[in-house]
Amino acid sequence: MRASKECPFCPGNEEMTPKAVAVYRDDGVFVDGETRIRGWWARCIPNMYPAMVPDPDAPTPEWMAMPARGGHEVIIESPDHESSPAIFDDEKIIRMIRVYADRYRYHTDRGSSYVSIFKNWGREAGASLSHTHTQLIALPMIPPLLMREVSAISSMPSCPYCNIAEREASSERLIFREGVWICIAPFYSQTPYEMWILPCKHISSILEMSDSMRLELGRSMKKALQRLSVLLNDPPYNYMIFQMSSNYHLNIRIQPAISKIAGFEKNTGIYINPVSPEQAASELRSVL
Amino acid sequence: MRASKECPFCPGNEEMTPKAVAVYRDDGVFVDGETRIRGWWARCIPNMYPAMVPDPDAPTPEWMAMPARGGHEVIIESPDHESSPAIFDDEKIIRMIRVYADRYRYHTDRGSSYVSIFKNWGREAGASLSHTHTQLIALPMIPPLLMREVSAISSMPSCPYCNIAEREASSERLIFREGVWICIAPFYSQTPYEMWILPCKHISSILEMSDSMRLELGRSMKKALQRLSVLLNDPPYNYMIFQMSSNYHLNIRIQPAISKIAGFEKNTGIYINPVSPEQAASELRSVL
Repeated sequence: MRASKECPFCPGNEEMTPKAVAVYRDDGVFVDGETRIRGWWARCIPNMYPAMVPDPDAPTPEWMAMPARGGHEVIIESPDHESSPAIFDDEKIIRMIRVYADRYRYHTDRGSSYVSIFKNWGREAGASLSHTHTQLIALPMIPPLLMREVSAISSMPSCPYCNIAEREASSERLIFREGVWICIAPFYSQTPYEMWILPCKHISSILEMSDSMRLELGRSMKKALQRLSVLLNDPPYNYMIFQMSSNYHLNIRIQPAISKIAGFEKNTGIYINPVSPEQAASELRSVL
Repeated sequence: MRASKECPFCPGNEEMTPKAVAVYRDDGVFVDGETRIRGWWARCIPNMYPAMVPDPDAPTPEWMAMPARGGHEVIIESPDHESSPAIFDDEKIIRMIRVYADRYRYHTDRGSSYVSIFKNWGREAGASLSHTHTQLIALPMIPPLLMREVSAISSMPSCPYCNIAEREASSERLIFREGVWICIAPFYSQTPYEMWILPCKHISSILEMSDSMRLELGRSMKKALQRLSVLLNDPPYNYMIFQMSSNYHLNIRIQPAISKIAGFEKNTGIYINPVSPEQAASELRSVL
């Protein structure tokens, strides 16, 4: 295992971070006290520059605004300074999914309306530290993007994600299938080489999964990221877990950060993507 | 005037671009023939990698999709390789607004539903060439972002932009006033140091302006960009002209591209901005 002396996410440097709210070891899950716990395989800490906090200041009285009530955590999903989900083995990737599920449950149990779990990989994608980590932001509201989607879905006769999964399982936009999960280049890709992972079975969140589904999801994420890394030489990317406690169909969106969101996108909300999803899927299929 | 031998937007290299659809000289506006017109102070050419074209291929029959019918132009608003709107003099900046208005009218007259005019300045903001230029994309639809806004506005008793202009003209988020225009750091700034320029008079588009309003708008844009450049050392930025043919209140949004749109923004549509607009306005006021 490789470590860096300067990296606050590396083993040995635990004092450089706030106290962990969850430390995962082979013998259980712990919480940091005055001394930091060592020997972990994953570690969740409060973000030092939180977007949401348990007790925010009152919002400005001048205009309407909501208090930033919630939580903001960093999940360090490996002690290895030079690893990443693209090269995790089965055990490590399943552990990552388990930690995601644990922290998701923690915040939904405490009344958060939405829990955003996402990874920024590479400086261009917004990561300020290179040691692999995932962020979790728990919100006091359902975000506008999700509200619009839920509203559109509710006016449809059946779940559009179920329809997509069924249709794309045999389309030229399919990249691979792993048990109940498919990985596709979506027809409506916003970025070149965008990938979506979604279950062919209708589940709303990461909490509804059986152990075997979780294993398959972990393998799917690893495979997708591995293909991306090989095809585009470890590009910067973001992935986001879209999920809700009910009436939704969990899906994971992986967007390489290799194109710019510029004036046109900001003016219109329309994305220019010069690589067709069929072409992207064909290239992503071919590399492994 | 400074020119570069390699730059396709510099005078002398007109053959490196497609034929201009509008060439602005002191003696009139012309269109390129087999030989390119020289001696211009502004020049509009078709984008070599267009997002929209007059006669697009039929969309894929498999899913619903709209043809990319429209136009995509590059407006080279100065022959000077090292100039930019932040340092244009009065004459140059007014000419730029005039060209914007001309090309906006051209495309709306031909039935485009929306005409997006925007500038990407600096590589980080999506500009692939450093010579100052603006892009125009004419669309066969009103973009979803604008549709939502128009829908929200239509349910309000009065124009929210008129209310904002009146209120912010005396708030601590005011950066400056130039005749009928105000420049503000909006309360809901998506990025650090975001600026909006809007008229205190209700107009829908750049076509509705008197000559004096146009002069004041040009000066406002120059002042805003100059302040941004001085405060943040010529940062990359995007500006976008939000306008419609009716039932809207023209506004121009300037967003420095100094923060990343990362996983959280992509998951939620919510933007994290660590600089309060009051702080940003205070700093932007203080530099000139």
